[in-house]
Amino acid sequence: MYQPVREFYESKGFGGRKGFGSRPAILVIDLARAWIDEGSPLGSRNLEPVVENTAVVLDAARAKNVPIFFTVMAFDKAGVETVGPVGKKVYNRVKDRSFTRGTPMVEIDPRLNRRPDEVIIEKPRGSAFWESPLLSYLIGRDVDTVIVTGCSTSGCVRSTSESAHNLNFHAIVAAEAVGDRHPLAHEANLTDIDLRFADVTPVADVVKYLSGLSADGFAKAG
Amino acid sequence: MYQPVREFYESKGFGGRKGFGSRPAILVIDLARAWIDEGSPLGSRNLEPVVENTAVVLDAARAKNVPIFFTVMAFDKAGVETVGPVGKKVYNRVKDRSFTRGTPMVEIDPRLNRRPDEVIIEKPRGSAFWESPLLSYLIGRDVDTVIVTGCSTSGCVRSTSESAHNLNFHAIVAAEAVGDRHPLAHEANLTDIDLRFADVTPVADVVKYLSGLSADGFAKAG
Amino acid sequence: MYQPVREFYESKGFGGRKGFGSRPAILVIDLARAWIDEGSPLGSRNLEPVVENTAVVLDAARAKNVPIFFTVMAFDKAGVETVGPVGKKVYNRVKDRSFTRGTPMVEIDPRLNRRPDEVIIEKPRGSAFWESPLLSYLIGRDVDTVIVTGCSTSGCVRSTSESAHNLNFHAIVAAEAVGDRHPLAHEANLTDIDLRFADVTPVADVVKYLSGLSADGFAKAG
Amino acid sequence: MYQPVREFYESKGFGGRKGFGSRPAILVIDLARAWIDEGSPLGSRNLEPVVENTAVVLDAARAKNVPIFFTVMAFDKAGVETVGPVGKKVYNRVKDRSFTRGTPMVEIDPRLNRRPDEVIIEKPRGSAFWESPLLSYLIGRDVDTVIVTGCSTSGCVRSTSESAHNLNFHAIVAAEAVGDRHPLAHEANLTDIDLRFADVTPVADVVKYLSGLSADGFAKAG
Repeated sequence: MYQPVREFYESKGFGGRKGFGSRPAILVIDLARAWIDEGSPLGSRNLEPVVENTAVVLDAARAKNVPIFFTVMAFDKAGVETVGPVGKKVYNRVKDRSFTRGTPMVEIDPRLNRRPDEVIIEKPRGSAFWESPLLSYLIGRDVDTVIVTGCSTSGCVRSTSESAHNLNFHAIVAAEAVGDRHPLAHEANLTDIDLRFADVTPVADVVKYLSGLSADGFAKAG
Repeated sequence: MYQPVREFYESKGFGGRKGFGSRPAILVIDLARAWIDEGSPLGSRNLEPVVENTAVVLDAARAKNVPIFFTVMAFDKAGVETVGPVGKKVYNRVKDRSFTRGTPMVEIDPRLNRRPDEVIIEKPRGSAFWESPLLSYLIGRDVDTVIVTGCSTSGCVRSTSESAHNLNFHAIVAAEAVGDRHPLAHEANLTDIDLRFADVTPVADVVKYLSGLSADGFAKAG
Repeated sequence: MYQPVREFYESKGFGGRKGFGSRPAILVIDLARAWIDEGSPLGSRNLEPVVENTAVVLDAARAKNVPIFFTVMAFDKAGVETVGPVGKKVYNRVKDRSFTRGTPMVEIDPRLNRRPDEVIIEKPRGSAFWESPLLSYLIGRDVDTVIVTGCSTSGCVRSTSESAHNLNFHAIVAAEAVGDRHPLAHEANLTDIDLRFADVTPVADVVKYLSGLSADGFAKAG
Repeated sequence: MYQPVREFYESKGFGGRKGFGSRPAILVIDLARAWIDEGSPLGSRNLEPVVENTAVVLDAARAKNVPIFFTVMAFDKAGVETVGPVGKKVYNRVKDRSFTRGTPMVEIDPRLNRRPDEVIIEKPRGSAFWESPLLSYLIGRDVDTVIVTGCSTSGCVRSTSESAHNLNFHAIVAAEAVGDRHPLAHEANLTDIDLRFADVTPVADVVKYLSGLSADGFAKAG
């Protein structure tokens, strides 16, 4: 029997709390048909609650004009058949090209009611920050807190949380608003994320924080 | 009972093989006292085999003049007390400042016999590529294959493997030459790495590949 | 009277030659209507020779199956009205939104006959490498030499050349295939580029190099 | 006779003003012996006023506890003899290895009175942001305004200003606190910087802005 990973890592100094900062943005990771539909090659059947809980977070964010960004893994038609080692691990095995820009598979789930001024970030890899323009959008909006929802916990959610941590943002993962194809991968990675990168925080606490912001999306001075 | 993570993810198209390319480099991740010594706040007691297996890989690499890079997490004295959220997760909780440049805690393990021309990469985060000059060293040496050894599987090894994948290198993890503070974190992350980022490959196969290179460290034309 | 910039800088050790490497790619920077048409807010009237000379380079490259990438500055419709300081310098002053993805202003000049497998890189800033997926395309194709054409010398051409240099590629600028709105900005920046970042090389020499490659775009072993 | 570059570019929509934001940091670029001493291979003889004017900016910044960062181009001893094309342009031509970490040539000019808590950023290329940890220091300190001083205008100052612009900071260059080996390179690049990347602003105005900050270095709410 092993001591649990969390307990052991906490004894080594991991797992501190960052808390919320004063200016959040919401990142909704890859909630498009290619990942949500069971019929899609990469799709998961169990992400309905993730979509619903993300919608709850978005409602609270929109009420305070908090910046919202949606990501999707999408490539230019000429670029989707990725050459080189990166394609051999996953992409080339997906025969129906789920990732082509402008196709239905990469449309954001309509239940999330994306508004025209909520930017879609096309990202070529797991992290929403990798080779994407996300970072400068955040800096230009004075964001110091990144709240992550979407999928998958063991892939793009973890990678995005790590990048947000690396960049020194208050990285927050909305616990019930992230999910994975597989429950064990979800659990193991949620633990790693909380110990190393981002505070895994109940949706209720995220909503409470958002609801306390000023009308333009800043924390009120104490 | 769940279907195993690996089996399920493979059924979705993950876990392809990249194979070795034609020009490797070795990355030895954080095999310094701060991570290896049990007395260190972040140290693990069980990394002896990792050091030994890394030495085996290094012997084979040096015999063929393959480029070798050591990483260490080390900061300038003025920078080690990291300000902001990043410090709250881990660094600020480490009271004795294990990460100061030039201190014994960040010296590479002497059993690895680092040679003067083997570059040390000081990295501020998990991935050896994050905010470090590693990438341009690799490009300047025509490297297309990155072989990762060291620790920790759930932290810097995974992050480095992901970056190498993102950048489109043939990313290889030498299986018995990587380790973690905790065996369950090791196993779960080794699975994720193999499914998503890098081929987890036995040390014996890595050594065989290295031994087949030309004297200047390139794969011979077939 | 001052000593010329070039002469003085060369006396200080700048301006060495990199030469061509063994595996080139061509980058065609921003040869779309928004930059070429005089009627466009940002357009230049004098870039006809740049387009013609780029076409000459492309013919030689295609004959040897050398990878070709076109860049364009284009944004998602929701993202084009850039918030924050970056918009105040240039973008917000361009009232007709020249940069929206999918509009005629950002189409590649038809005289360059882009083929369907030649990837278009949408870049949000000057350098073709900044927040774009270009780099991993190059690494996945084993590229070690980046040949730059297009516009503007004082903007995107210089920035792209600097990034290619920073990353340790053989950076080459095809001299008559780059241009600028203003001849003095062109001259001053071409000098800086040659001293600091990339070998400014006559188109004839670029074509000669390309013509000597193997049919799959690699330099033949000497 | 040509229309001046500035006038022509402004007619095309370039050269807008960003203004100061609400939270500045100062970047002092490469004011170390290797660049200042005339006896150094890369040194300039005419940078005395740059050092003096930088000291004026630093006095005003320290009075308000504004974060200050010094950069220096310095490499690990094993890394200084850069392999690959990057070395051929400049570094390899500098025979006495001016860039080795810990040597007198890379010490910050003592007249700038660096304090122990003012972080030194070792950077391998021109931009202070390239492959360096600078960015996360800025984000962790809520910085939205980057004020640049130091040398050289046509190299590291321009590159740093461009990166700060790309990242969506309020980028400001303190006009009399930056300089170059050559006056024409200085002038041409200062014009490009002001048109494209950063507001070139008199030191007196920078000092006035800094003096108006609160004691912890934030602009007071209007």
